[in-house]
Amino acid sequence: MTEIRERASEAAIGEVLAALAFNADGLIGAIAQQFDTGEVLMFAWMSREAVAETLRSGRVHYWSRSRAALWRKGERSGQVQRLVELRFDCDQDALLLQVDQTGVACHTGRRSCFFRAARDGTLVTIAEPTVDPRTLYGQEGS
Amino acid sequence: MTEIRERASEAAIGEVLAALAFNADGLIGAIAQQFDTGEVLMFAWMSREAVAETLRSGRVHYWSRSRAALWRKGERSGQVQRLVELRFDCDQDALLLQVDQTGVACHTGRRSCFFRAARDGTLVTIAEPTVDPRTLYGQEGS
Repeated sequence: MTEIRERASEAAIGEVLAALAFNADGLIGAIAQQFDTGEVLMFAWMSREAVAETLRSGRVHYWSRSRAALWRKGERSGQVQRLVELRFDCDQDALLLQVDQTGVACHTGRRSCFFRAARDGTLVTIAEPTVDPRTLYGQEGS
Repeated sequence: MTEIRERASEAAIGEVLAALAFNADGLIGAIAQQFDTGEVLMFAWMSREAVAETLRSGRVHYWSRSRAALWRKGERSGQVQRLVELRFDCDQDALLLQVDQTGVACHTGRRSCFFRAARDGTLVTIAEPTVDPRTLYGQEGS
């Protein structure tokens, strides 16, 4: 299950794209989950091109809404996500990406972006950075 | 961890709502994950009222975009979600709900809504219903 997955054919990519319901902005939400531990790492958006490039390359791509650009996860930080399996839900409008995350998913240097929680009547930080984000980026983004 | 969680105070609910970034429609995306197995069950949307009612009652509520109404998960099907912990991400615009799911999360009678996958160059169904959806609903919704 951890070996490099077979690259998807253009026919297979077309079949996936035809099955998905993109929103009015041409995007679909994607949950990234570490395939073996089940940890939810992040939530981001994918364009049709991001889905196609992810299936074509086996490397997860998203759509950066802030930069309005295709975003190859880890392109600057080196914290890449290898695609293990792409799944989608009953409404075809959400993706669940089973991935193998190199290093950390979060631009703050934490393994998961979901590091704040409501506990005991207040908000708490439940994970600390394991990597200094300054070592990941020159200046910006993940 | 599985006992009934303490109900959140109104002050704690206000703190959570103030921390979250709702979109232009007043909604925030929410991933529901079974707290002990790590299985991702579904993705849906929450309004401010849905977040508040979830924290207040310990029972997960969503916003049904199709019905434009607050939706208490399991209100018709009995397949309720008890909140174990509400988490959110670094951008404060996505929620990760650790839940304890009674029965199945999906209106098709499957445990998880993410039951389709791109495998071996085609789309496959990776889980079958464990409950007949006709036994869950009179007519509609989950």
